[in-house]
Amino acid sequence: MKKKSEQELEIEKIRKTNFSTRRVTVTKIEKILYKSFKVLDHGFIRVIDYMGDDSSIVQAARVSYGKGTKKLNQDKSLINYLISHRHSTPFEMNEIKFHIKLPIFVARQWIRHRTANVNEYSARYSILDREFYIPKNRDLKPQSKTNNQGRSGKLESEDVKFYSKLLKKNSIKSFENYSLLLNEDDEGKILDEKRNGLARELSRMTLPLNAYTQWYWKIDLHNLMHFLALRFDPHAQYEIRVYAEIMMGIFKKWVPLTYEAFISNRLRSLTISEEGVSYIKSLLHGKKSNKENVSKRELQHINKIFSL
Amino acid sequence: MKKKSEQELEIEKIRKTNFSTRRVTVTKIEKILYKSFKVLDHGFIRVIDYMGDDSSIVQAARVSYGKGTKKLNQDKSLINYLISHRHSTPFEMNEIKFHIKLPIFVARQWIRHRTANVNEYSARYSILDREFYIPKNRDLKPQSKTNNQGRSGKLESEDVKFYSKLLKKNSIKSFENYSLLLNEDDEGKILDEKRNGLARELSRMTLPLNAYTQWYWKIDLHNLMHFLALRFDPHAQYEIRVYAEIMMGIFKKWVPLTYEAFISNRLRSLTISEEGVSYIKSLLHGKKSNKENVSKRELQHINKIFSL
Amino acid sequence: MKKKSEQELEIEKIRKTNFSTRRVTVTKIEKILYKSFKVLDHGFIRVIDYMGDDSSIVQAARVSYGKGTKKLNQDKSLINYLISHRHSTPFEMNEIKFHIKLPIFVARQWIRHRTANVNEYSARYSILDREFYIPKNRDLKPQSKTNNQGRSGKLESEDVKFYSKLLKKNSIKSFENYSLLLNEDDEGKILDEKRNGLARELSRMTLPLNAYTQWYWKIDLHNLMHFLALRFDPHAQYEIRVYAEIMMGIFKKWVPLTYEAFISNRLRSLTISEEGVSYIKSLLHGKKSNKENVSKRELQHINKIFSL
Amino acid sequence: MKKKSEQELEIEKIRKTNFSTRRVTVTKIEKILYKSFKVLDHGFIRVIDYMGDDSSIVQAARVSYGKGTKKLNQDKSLINYLISHRHSTPFEMNEIKFHIKLPIFVARQWIRHRTANVNEYSARYSILDREFYIPKNRDLKPQSKTNNQGRSGKLESEDVKFYSKLLKKNSIKSFENYSLLLNEDDEGKILDEKRNGLARELSRMTLPLNAYTQWYWKIDLHNLMHFLALRFDPHAQYEIRVYAEIMMGIFKKWVPLTYEAFISNRLRSLTISEEGVSYIKSLLHGKKSNKENVSKRELQHINKIFSL
Repeated sequence: MKKKSEQELEIEKIRKTNFSTRRVTVTKIEKILYKSFKVLDHGFIRVIDYMGDDSSIVQAARVSYGKGTKKLNQDKSLINYLISHRHSTPFEMNEIKFHIKLPIFVARQWIRHRTANVNEYSARYSILDREFYIPKNRDLKPQSKTNNQGRSGKLESEDVKFYSKLLKKNSIKSFENYSLLLNEDDEGKILDEKRNGLARELSRMTLPLNAYTQWYWKIDLHNLMHFLALRFDPHAQYEIRVYAEIMMGIFKKWVPLTYEAFISNRLRSLTISEEGVSYIKSLLHGKKSNKENVSKRELQHINKIFSL
Repeated sequence: MKKKSEQELEIEKIRKTNFSTRRVTVTKIEKILYKSFKVLDHGFIRVIDYMGDDSSIVQAARVSYGKGTKKLNQDKSLINYLISHRHSTPFEMNEIKFHIKLPIFVARQWIRHRTANVNEYSARYSILDREFYIPKNRDLKPQSKTNNQGRSGKLESEDVKFYSKLLKKNSIKSFENYSLLLNEDDEGKILDEKRNGLARELSRMTLPLNAYTQWYWKIDLHNLMHFLALRFDPHAQYEIRVYAEIMMGIFKKWVPLTYEAFISNRLRSLTISEEGVSYIKSLLHGKKSNKENVSKRELQHINKIFSL
Repeated sequence: MKKKSEQELEIEKIRKTNFSTRRVTVTKIEKILYKSFKVLDHGFIRVIDYMGDDSSIVQAARVSYGKGTKKLNQDKSLINYLISHRHSTPFEMNEIKFHIKLPIFVARQWIRHRTANVNEYSARYSILDREFYIPKNRDLKPQSKTNNQGRSGKLESEDVKFYSKLLKKNSIKSFENYSLLLNEDDEGKILDEKRNGLARELSRMTLPLNAYTQWYWKIDLHNLMHFLALRFDPHAQYEIRVYAEIMMGIFKKWVPLTYEAFISNRLRSLTISEEGVSYIKSLLHGKKSNKENVSKRELQHINKIFSL
Repeated sequence: MKKKSEQELEIEKIRKTNFSTRRVTVTKIEKILYKSFKVLDHGFIRVIDYMGDDSSIVQAARVSYGKGTKKLNQDKSLINYLISHRHSTPFEMNEIKFHIKLPIFVARQWIRHRTANVNEYSARYSILDREFYIPKNRDLKPQSKTNNQGRSGKLESEDVKFYSKLLKKNSIKSFENYSLLLNEDDEGKILDEKRNGLARELSRMTLPLNAYTQWYWKIDLHNLMHFLALRFDPHAQYEIRVYAEIMMGIFKKWVPLTYEAFISNRLRSLTISEEGVSYIKSLLHGKKSNKENVSKRELQHINKIFSL
């Protein structure tokens, strides 16, 4: 990979381009185009390109000859309707392309979203940067007692120090071994002239899951919302949620009407089972609550949401 | 649907928009943006939006910070390599969005390409135009004797007249029945004040497969090439091939390097089976040709291509 | 297409096959395998093959070496959890393959579900049966006044008769024209020895949208549930809903635990927007209801569901 | 994860199941169902389930009521035609489900095939086995001089020893650190009663890319062939090719006619560009060879294939 300063120069240069276009254009996204938003200790998200705005959704839903938009209120109401009735095709008409740098264990979760396009930096072809993710102390937590796949609670501060140090040591040692296998440091200098390095596709096997990779990732708006619904969720792992957070900000700048509808009707919406509906109905009518059919997990959730 | 003149005004209006953008821009596509290319008797193709150009493919393949392009020759050679080795992901980084009007029987073939995004005009919601496809006389042909699913050869001229007239009559009558069921003509005038029309989702059942529909259709460059490889092919039905032809012209304007590589390495390339390779090898070395292992169909094809 | 009696003999014959297998097997599906379930006037659904049962979902979710199932109660609870948290991948591990005969306008809606595999009978290659869908009188209704894309209410009985007759006449005439163009009736008899027929790919253009087509359609359980959530819905067009109904019965036989969870947590569940939640909360706590933020459409829906 | 012996018992037990089915059944696959085929030092492939055989492809292509097969020769010829003309939908009608154990760096390549269904063992939820891939000495090679992303040639034997030892040491140390972070060894024993372990989703960050993971992976036959065309290729990394090799054997047992057609028409076929065709044509006709238009890379390839 290139050095940071070279990368910054390339970004600076490309941000100076300016063209004339008949295409739908979003000023707020133009302003941040190519800009690098920092995530975690060495990661980033950059918007590289986009297609469409809120009006494009309306235009496609109406199969229009022109812009297809009517009064702002009507467009807003249509978008709201489409989101709340889970219509997906008009939102597939918008696309956004990102350049993202992220730890490998995050990339492994991320790639499970199959309906996106990806070009990843290849460690068979190139040598990875000596960069790895070390969580901040406040993010080092024990296994959660309620969520079998998450973390929560607090560790003793000496334990935090111990773990942090161990993570760092493991990373440094792994990268050292990576260089030894390649017989080349990350400046491209040969380490031992008498040895021939091991192939890159094999040397990379020593890299730990907190090493950074990067990719171009392109997705349509419908699938982006699906990604965000899962990854901006409090149950998502913190290290992917911070990427989703940055994306929420970009989403808002890009298609503000869709963003608002998404917040109300997806992110902060509540889905209740048949039994849950029946329970709430009994409460609303002051009848004996038939909560026994509701699963324990759902009952807790409903009671929490409605402060019951 | 709106009247033609209204549609033309909408297109004229949207073609006057002009914005400033930092995005990669293709002048030749900007020139034709929103413009309607006529296909068949009432169909059209319009480019509504696009993302990326040739350099975007290179940029993604290299996971670049800036434009990612090097010398034109190097970019060209990389694109050629990617196409000929059937790399697909860098081409997925470009998108193009069309507005297309097409006969229903063509739409039924077209939709089999699942890796695109579609919003179709709904005949449950709206009333279709009184427009249907009638082939030109020269396109009315008998069933092919060699290709079980195509047409070829010539009909007697009085038969052509008979068929053409029959197709017209059937279309006119079907649309008449459509109006009678809706109890509404295509200007929106009620036909019989005493009757209540049949629902649109039922009335449409009388429409023939040569009625026109329209949709917004968005696809990435990789899948567009797959579509064109199948639909620009001489074996594709004429009525879909003419759409593919227009798209080939648009493709060339949009990403000329990719277009060239596609022509050489996909469209005009030849794939030979193991047995076919062995046959050609024997010919090249002046040995007794071992053609008996080659299938009859392939043997004919090879002999034709190489004028043997 | 073959004659009905030949088709029945083929089905009878294939239903007599019997093999020994180590694969997970569902007795209730084995009983109906290959059997034809009638839909509409000439349509049908047949299960041709299936992969997996309820235990396969659990097995995949647990990445098991053996069956992966524990106590029935634990499996049931896991499946419930997976459905209600919209986990999709374990349900993708089951597949079902259908042979379906359906009117073309239904096929056009159906095919929009892109995540299935399809092989359709080709009217470029073969001649379609003289079969078309004519709704029963009770299903002939006017355009709905509330649902812009549906039907509801009642027509005068003489209008019903008029429309029914018109639909029949249009279908018969269209098929007659189809035969004239092909110069061949549906028994394969040449109509006029002196004429050469028009190619099949062109003759089919006269077929109306209520002509029947057929296909093999294979889908995984996750996407089947998505299909059913949309097509078993009261807002779906009646003519596709009847197919979904038959499939619901097959679904229940195949994976009864998943079926139950789907009914409670998807089909009869309720999704409320942020504003809707806040409205219900205010009612539950006897506060002044803040319904003004809820959209009119949602307010009606909530009030109806909870009998408010 | 469970201990090996427990796993073997589970497999033994499930292999004893035996059911009666009307479904198409493949004896050669039944014999190996659930059986574990060893790959690399700790990996494996097991077939868990399958749908269809060669006849199912023919049945779907013909949209049949019964089996749809004709004479073996006709079926074979149809399958050959479908493969050589790159028809994909009939092959999508067959499915196969695997349980696979593989190093993480292999899993990262593998997952790029998006058209498959996957359930992976979660290291957020569970603790991974202390198992890692160490290449055999003969597989430790330097970077290739011709293939920028591969290995080839030979290392000095003392270098091989040095690299092998380093890989082992790095793996052992990383797993040691993994246990220290979890504060739990792989038998589930707490290491330090006074410390609280770090959450699993964080501890896993120390795992190297040669640690093993496992998943259920289901794919249709069309996409399996695409996977094998890429991964059984000599340019694929050795460590994924060995998995593809095992799959080729399973493929052959499952659908022998399709396998044969795939070998002739895909795996050992040759695709030549327009320029390449013209070059070969000139040679066949003894004319001055117009090789100057052929790219250097293709020219070498053609000359090698045809021994020119």
